[in-house]
Amino acid sequence: MIPFELTILGSGSAIPTLQRNASSQLLQYNGTTILIDCAEGTQLLLKKDKISAMRIDYILISHLHGDHYFGLIGLINTLHLIGRTLPLTLFGPPQLINILQMMLDASDTKLRFELLFHPLAESGLQRIHEDKHLIFSSFPVVHRIPTWGFLISEKKLYKKLDPTFVDAFKPGVSQMLAIRQGADFIDEKGVLHPNNKITLPMASPRSYAYCTDTAYNESIIPYIKGASLLYHEATFMENLVSKAELTFHSTSRQAATIAKKAEVGKLLLGHFSSRYADLTPLLNEAKLVFENSELAMDGEKILID
Amino acid sequence: MIPFELTILGSGSAIPTLQRNASSQLLQYNGTTILIDCAEGTQLLLKKDKISAMRIDYILISHLHGDHYFGLIGLINTLHLIGRTLPLTLFGPPQLINILQMMLDASDTKLRFELLFHPLAESGLQRIHEDKHLIFSSFPVVHRIPTWGFLISEKKLYKKLDPTFVDAFKPGVSQMLAIRQGADFIDEKGVLHPNNKITLPMASPRSYAYCTDTAYNESIIPYIKGASLLYHEATFMENLVSKAELTFHSTSRQAATIAKKAEVGKLLLGHFSSRYADLTPLLNEAKLVFENSELAMDGEKILID
Repeated sequence: MIPFELTILGSGSAIPTLQRNASSQLLQYNGTTILIDCAEGTQLLLKKDKISAMRIDYILISHLHGDHYFGLIGLINTLHLIGRTLPLTLFGPPQLINILQMMLDASDTKLRFELLFHPLAESGLQRIHEDKHLIFSSFPVVHRIPTWGFLISEKKLYKKLDPTFVDAFKPGVSQMLAIRQGADFIDEKGVLHPNNKITLPMASPRSYAYCTDTAYNESIIPYIKGASLLYHEATFMENLVSKAELTFHSTSRQAATIAKKAEVGKLLLGHFSSRYADLTPLLNEAKLVFENSELAMDGEKILID
Repeated sequence: MIPFELTILGSGSAIPTLQRNASSQLLQYNGTTILIDCAEGTQLLLKKDKISAMRIDYILISHLHGDHYFGLIGLINTLHLIGRTLPLTLFGPPQLINILQMMLDASDTKLRFELLFHPLAESGLQRIHEDKHLIFSSFPVVHRIPTWGFLISEKKLYKKLDPTFVDAFKPGVSQMLAIRQGADFIDEKGVLHPNNKITLPMASPRSYAYCTDTAYNESIIPYIKGASLLYHEATFMENLVSKAELTFHSTSRQAATIAKKAEVGKLLLGHFSSRYADLTPLLNEAKLVFENSELAMDGEKILID
């Protein structure tokens, strides 16, 4: 199976601490590298993890609160200085490009690479990009300012035919393609062979959903339904639910409720308030609702399967 | 003597490394705290050094290359979040305030404290501020974009009278003030007592000069003449002098030449290119011209005397 791996660069929230950096994650799939959010200091965290920033193909920025993008201009500046020439694709709130351009102008910097900026749209689930293997989608979440969640999904792969069946029935090319796309087969004697009997079992497409920062919001459930891994913010515990509501954030229990209702494979909690030195109570709170919950920890790598 | 201390937060140049952060320094004098430049990550470096960002009174930004200010918006954002209410005085290139305002607007942030911004002027030595103890000046240096150096000087203090003289001659109040300001004294018999015989010896005012980034530029010498400590950039060694010229930076030898011609007390070299893992050769090169040279090292504290 092609490795599909998430690296947590920062799991903290608005105020960075020496223990937890603010939001930044790296998603890697078969040579494709995606940076999701880019808090201050992200370029050094990549360096610490021995990940070359040159390898980043896509950057997705969820919203324009500083703890999600203040490291972006520094990263772009460094890529320019170390000689990147390959285009860099950037998705983010429309205003982001104006901020970057103002800072580039102020330093009289003409980037040596093309910055392909795509503003995010404010309504519904949007397919923002696809490449050979992956589909990228965005969807609005509910926060103080316009904010988006992201879904990165493997494309549905063609099935593989069972060689025993191929040897026995010698299907034609067009028949084989139809079977690989899910069709059944009727042989010369009129016997129907159901698709699942003549193809090899295969894993279903994997997907990663990223939801931060957001108030509790059930309207995202259809978008992230059945995701292999859901990262959902859990800034507070349930005893601070009114503070969560006031600041358009979620509690650990709310994150777990979304995970349960969306029937995801695994829940990863993050964006923890700097008030929590020990995160175990947040994890325990989530596990009461959704057992397969984990804490995002800076530097941690998680296989998506 | 009142402590006058410099802390090097970052001594590196454009590309931050795991060994050296980009430009940022903290100057402390008798309860007054001045941040000079503010590269990405400065707020965490302060935290590491157990220096509360709340204590910062003044921030001086030399120019708008990212390695000198990309950490400023993050620091300001954190000060807002942790509840600063005291005004913060900021000196920098005129365009800086527009960049900050655009980012504050994008995050819908209304700062809880007043940001008193003073744009720097492009000509000559300018006295930009003074408080009870210190005089702040700026002066343009020569770089790819408008860039300023800074001079922070102790005010000239009144002298102290020699108690033996006071007992013997009982000068009046206005006479004492005149002597403390440097006047001689003529006693009842018409005998002249020179000022230096009737006052206690005192230290001359101390000063700190900050010059980065800059090409070799002798026009700054009158401004920094006799400074107690000069921080001067030394991005390259002399064998890369043509690269220094091309990029409007200085070599270690050039920094030492400025130090020698300006007759400063001590030279602190910094803003080292990330190509230098071992900095000893840069120090040796400077010492050949100006013996009292030192390397700026991240985390180091230097008493100015």
